[in-house]
Amino acid sequence: MKLFWSSRSRMVITLSIWYLSGVICESNRRETYIVHMDKSEMPKVFTSCHHWYSSTHNSPSIMYWYENALEGFSAALTPQEMDSLKETPGFISAHRDRKTTLDTTQSYGFLSLNESHGLWPASNYGENVVVGVIDSGIWPESQSFKDDGMPRQTPPKWKGACQGGQDFHPSLCNSKLIGVRYFNRGVLAAEAGAHAHPHSDSVRDTVGHGTHTASTVAGNYVDGASYFGYARGTARGIAPRAQIAMYKVSWGPDVYASDMLAGFDQAIADGVDVISISLGFNTVPLFEDPLAIAAFSAMEKGVVVSASAGNAGPSLGSLHNGIPWVLTVGASNTERSFAGTLILGNGKRFSGWTLFPGSATVNDLPLVYDRACDSWEQLSRVARGSIVICGSGVDFYQQMVQVSSSDVYGAVFMSSDSRFSEIGKMTCPGVVIDNEDGESVMKYAGGTQRPTASIKFQQTYLGIKPAPTVASYSSRGPSWECPWVLKPDVIAPGSSILAAWPPDLAAARVGANVILNNEYNLLSGTSMACPHASGVVALLKNAHPEWSASAIRSALTTTARPLDNTGKPIQENGEHPVRASPLAMGAGIIDPNRALHPGLLYDATPQDYVNLLCAMNFSHSQILTITRSNAYNCSKPSFDLNYPSFVAFYHNQTDKLDRKFRRTVTYVGDGPASYTARLTSSNATSITFTVSPNRLFFKGKYEKRKFTLTLKSETETEQVVAYGALEWVEETGRHVVRSPLALLPTNVAFFPPPTF
Amino acid sequence: MKLFWSSRSRMVITLSIWYLSGVICESNRRETYIVHMDKSEMPKVFTSCHHWYSSTHNSPSIMYWYENALEGFSAALTPQEMDSLKETPGFISAHRDRKTTLDTTQSYGFLSLNESHGLWPASNYGENVVVGVIDSGIWPESQSFKDDGMPRQTPPKWKGACQGGQDFHPSLCNSKLIGVRYFNRGVLAAEAGAHAHPHSDSVRDTVGHGTHTASTVAGNYVDGASYFGYARGTARGIAPRAQIAMYKVSWGPDVYASDMLAGFDQAIADGVDVISISLGFNTVPLFEDPLAIAAFSAMEKGVVVSASAGNAGPSLGSLHNGIPWVLTVGASNTERSFAGTLILGNGKRFSGWTLFPGSATVNDLPLVYDRACDSWEQLSRVARGSIVICGSGVDFYQQMVQVSSSDVYGAVFMSSDSRFSEIGKMTCPGVVIDNEDGESVMKYAGGTQRPTASIKFQQTYLGIKPAPTVASYSSRGPSWECPWVLKPDVIAPGSSILAAWPPDLAAARVGANVILNNEYNLLSGTSMACPHASGVVALLKNAHPEWSASAIRSALTTTARPLDNTGKPIQENGEHPVRASPLAMGAGIIDPNRALHPGLLYDATPQDYVNLLCAMNFSHSQILTITRSNAYNCSKPSFDLNYPSFVAFYHNQTDKLDRKFRRTVTYVGDGPASYTARLTSSNATSITFTVSPNRLFFKGKYEKRKFTLTLKSETETEQVVAYGALEWVEETGRHVVRSPLALLPTNVAFFPPPTF
Repeated sequence: MKLFWSSRSRMVITLSIWYLSGVICESNRRETYIVHMDKSEMPKVFTSCHHWYSSTHNSPSIMYWYENALEGFSAALTPQEMDSLKETPGFISAHRDRKTTLDTTQSYGFLSLNESHGLWPASNYGENVVVGVIDSGIWPESQSFKDDGMPRQTPPKWKGACQGGQDFHPSLCNSKLIGVRYFNRGVLAAEAGAHAHPHSDSVRDTVGHGTHTASTVAGNYVDGASYFGYARGTARGIAPRAQIAMYKVSWGPDVYASDMLAGFDQAIADGVDVISISLGFNTVPLFEDPLAIAAFSAMEKGVVVSASAGNAGPSLGSLHNGIPWVLTVGASNTERSFAGTLILGNGKRFSGWTLFPGSATVNDLPLVYDRACDSWEQLSRVARGSIVICGSGVDFYQQMVQVSSSDVYGAVFMSSDSRFSEIGKMTCPGVVIDNEDGESVMKYAGGTQRPTASIKFQQTYLGIKPAPTVASYSSRGPSWECPWVLKPDVIAPGSSILAAWPPDLAAARVGANVILNNEYNLLSGTSMACPHASGVVALLKNAHPEWSASAIRSALTTTARPLDNTGKPIQENGEHPVRASPLAMGAGIIDPNRALHPGLLYDATPQDYVNLLCAMNFSHSQILTITRSNAYNCSKPSFDLNYPSFVAFYHNQTDKLDRKFRRTVTYVGDGPASYTARLTSSNATSITFTVSPNRLFFKGKYEKRKFTLTLKSETETEQVVAYGALEWVEETGRHVVRSPLALLPTNVAFFPPPTF
Repeated sequence: MKLFWSSRSRMVITLSIWYLSGVICESNRRETYIVHMDKSEMPKVFTSCHHWYSSTHNSPSIMYWYENALEGFSAALTPQEMDSLKETPGFISAHRDRKTTLDTTQSYGFLSLNESHGLWPASNYGENVVVGVIDSGIWPESQSFKDDGMPRQTPPKWKGACQGGQDFHPSLCNSKLIGVRYFNRGVLAAEAGAHAHPHSDSVRDTVGHGTHTASTVAGNYVDGASYFGYARGTARGIAPRAQIAMYKVSWGPDVYASDMLAGFDQAIADGVDVISISLGFNTVPLFEDPLAIAAFSAMEKGVVVSASAGNAGPSLGSLHNGIPWVLTVGASNTERSFAGTLILGNGKRFSGWTLFPGSATVNDLPLVYDRACDSWEQLSRVARGSIVICGSGVDFYQQMVQVSSSDVYGAVFMSSDSRFSEIGKMTCPGVVIDNEDGESVMKYAGGTQRPTASIKFQQTYLGIKPAPTVASYSSRGPSWECPWVLKPDVIAPGSSILAAWPPDLAAARVGANVILNNEYNLLSGTSMACPHASGVVALLKNAHPEWSASAIRSALTTTARPLDNTGKPIQENGEHPVRASPLAMGAGIIDPNRALHPGLLYDATPQDYVNLLCAMNFSHSQILTITRSNAYNCSKPSFDLNYPSFVAFYHNQTDKLDRKFRRTVTYVGDGPASYTARLTSSNATSITFTVSPNRLFFKGKYEKRKFTLTLKSETETEQVVAYGALEWVEETGRHVVRSPLALLPTNVAFFPPPTF
């Protein structure tokens, strides 16, 4: 989650209090542990895990029993209690509770979703699909969660409930928001005495994040939504007829694994079809990653878990949720931009970025140049009541803060770095123009007797080119947890997404002392990208209820677009844009309508994932922590997971590459078909790619075919990430099943893990 | 017009420039004169006044020819030219051009207008009635001027045109806005070289006033209009199906008589049914008052002129447009208020006034008391990031300015004076509570360990009691020009009226440097009251096309309500509210539905008005300046104008009063009817009122009956304005024809005129 100033300041406060409370606590205190138990060791006399565990471990401090996402419990234990627990039959592993942080309108149009054809009508807009959102709660009164037009019955499989609480009556659920639950024992145990969380016994959203993500996945139609006049239009979720179940596990900036697991556990038990989770745990091995563990159970039951890649980009290896059985979603910028127009006294017009939250009047005012704009006194002296042009030498954010508390009536900032437009907000009536336009404006201001200007606000432009670009903040692969799968899988719109927002939280700031709220807010982050993908998954769930979680991910991946709206390869946004690598965008931007008919699927069974874990040399108890079941075995360890993308490693400059990928594709078209392999590569000139066989024939639906992709090089390879793609092209050309391919130096793929 | 900060600051600038330009000009310069000529002296060889004047006075500096509002012209003349002009046959009088300044949504509900019965359906919402608005131009693109639902044909009598100009294409007129004209020669002659007026050759509104008043009279239906969330609802004019013709005569703060007369002249020529004019000239005799002169012509042709009383209240005698043949409209406050709620940490809630233009977030912040709030440094030291309680000792406006540029996140102001809510705006996230609530808040803040509070904004309350009250700014009678008629005639809603606004002008300010625009604005003044009355006149024009201008005014006056929504006499708003006298409210608040069926009318012919002028001892040429016609005579001078209200004078403490009023009423009901006189008096205990006869019988419609009202006192009268009413009560009780009555000391009625 990209946090804006209000949340950020709150986070700083929280962390300092937490730190202080840690200092004064005794060292022998109880710590919260998540304990994994092996149910197969349960004597037959017990009817449930709960009974069994209770008989073996009678701690009064048990916080949650887990039965679905994992098998076990969380409890606050002393070191002695922990030691005795390890002796208990059925004990697999125990890990300290850990914390992490949380990582919308026109985006459906950008994704080409439309009412006349494609995935929306084919999926009935996600009807009868339940999306479980694991997040910070929800603001149920939002227009986005009204249930007009929703089916009155909940799906028969639905077993959830609407949990009431402080300022949240159970009657607030309806046919759109069909279930809510909150999980706070972890945060209360960890932060007890530090500070009280508001609404700590209610699913009501006091952070805003959950309201935003839930409405992005499956918000109902809301006319006239806007962010203070920007992005105005009909807001709707990606799956506007899907149903929402909210599992509140975030109570502030920090999220505790024990709570998150409890929410995940309940979501699986309640019978959700999709889990959308916009948070992740950094640099933890799969067998300690709460999300990986819980998601394995979900995957087994056909529940697709869509998770955010993180906001730690653009460094390579910054990604979290790099879990083989999860859909990992990076963030893109969209074709929409928010603008103001600067009109000089001579009539010349310049478009610049702004999100000033109001219809400011800046008309025919004197135009004054101030080199730095970083001094309040200087500003008030030279530019009181004027429009100031701020020089490009000083940080834009600092300039904005100074101008916001000055007597300047308008500001022109200069920057050629478009990254601030991914996440920025504007607190004074100003626009940001690029340096080239800045030169023209300064020339006018310097060479005119009485230079004047006007600025118009609240403009929203669509069709911006190039779009999408990979957001600079979006975390990059490879996956620290499992470099053998290419992550992220895809990117989805994540920057300046308009979605619902609690009306009592800050949505904008004006000047030094005015904080504004709004029922819709623009937020940026992979947290916003994830629910876009989750929404498409919900649509596919309705259209193809027979597909496995792995199949749905395959469909999304092999149909994603690697090109932008200029027809060129997608770029990474930044001061110096470059062609995006698969470590930035995976297969590319999701293309929902194409995902409806992928042609071929790369499916995978739970045992296939276990084979990978076995190849990774995990211990039995490590694997059991993830799988909870001895039904799986390590008889066929293999890195050849049947994944819809490819990643290979080469060792420094001396290695000669010779890597074979074995894959099986399942035909999901109608009637006979033939597919031909096409290989593209970019900057890996010295590599030879071969596919065998390079043609595949299918007589009918669900037929499977195997093939092998071989990468070979006789010469030294360059020390860069090289990329390409394998495309299976159907003879009619209607289906192109594209798998991205990345070739990484091992020192990038296997960078030393941080200690933890 | 009540001007807000933006316009006010512009006015100050304009006036200083004007002053300087006056200093440097030579003393023998040309001055603009308005010249009245007697058309009857025109030799038959000329076919038009224009030809005749041109032959006698061949000045190249003639600005306007007038033929309808008056007969004559305006021209810039040297003293020598003026002298020679006086010798010309037909010359009546000449006066230097003079300048003056310009003096909506839920108000239709407050006036009980509704779709099920009464004046709206009876008048087809004003269909086929043309209202000429003489003002600052119009913003034709406003939603209020779209022509959805309007009849496609203009009325057959309509002869006007759509005059194009800078940034105003003639195609901008439509079936709602059927004509526009602009008149700028007076302002250009007076202010030439001083500064250029923006859009000085176009009817486009750069002031905002005309857009606001025109939409108040006859704006179309606009859903979802609001002032930054306040007063949200469907905006519509009082006569939503009437047609608008705009005559632009105001180009900034000053309005020149020559331009105003030209606009008036054209409006009459074009065939408007009603003229709405929200400006007036102070302390000029009737024969020099451009509005009085022009309105006489209008009255002769059955065109009702509705004009604003001025904003110089609450002093007695502050009224302008006290013209016997004009409907003079004062301003009332309405039953609507704009509020915020202060919620203390202990849960106590206080409602206070605010119009902060946004959805500010002021949640659970520390509450700090600052005695004065008049020091920016002190504020930033004690209350940074807090809510400050400002003491009641210092001017609220000064406090608001300081808080607006501080780091304070919210403010609580204290005042028991409700007058600021008539015209105020709020530039910081603050509320104004009364002193009594302020005591409770200070007690909480002083007696609590960590006092906190929240403030919620954008609340609109209806049903405020008591309402209406007379706005404190509304100018009071008696009429300086003609104390023998009771003025104002009525009051209409004038405070915080929501109506259309040019989107490029300031509508609100936030903090020190943010100016916001909006398509609707809240303005206050008799300028806003006047178009309410004009709209009702338009409705009556459709419902009773046979009624004279005097009859329509009579219907509005005798049916106006003297009581507020608590059933008690209407009060004058102010720090110490008092019962409103007829000099403040005339007959009371207009009641459109009752005006549809007034029962009896007090009609008057043009000769009746001339009889009054004769009684006032005006010279022949003075009367001719007003009437332009020798067809009138002074054979029956009389102060007994057949007016629907009564005003009498008593001379200091020694006078014994004996005043007779002779009146004629016209029955406009159906079938036979009988009316009985009922006299009420308030604080005039020593006066005897008698009516003779005190019963009136009518056999059928349009029958006339005469009566005499006598006021007598044998003892000394008190030195106060005493008031009462004569009511003719129909026997069924359905019709009560009420005429207010005021008794004035002569030193109030005939205060010495200022020199001019």
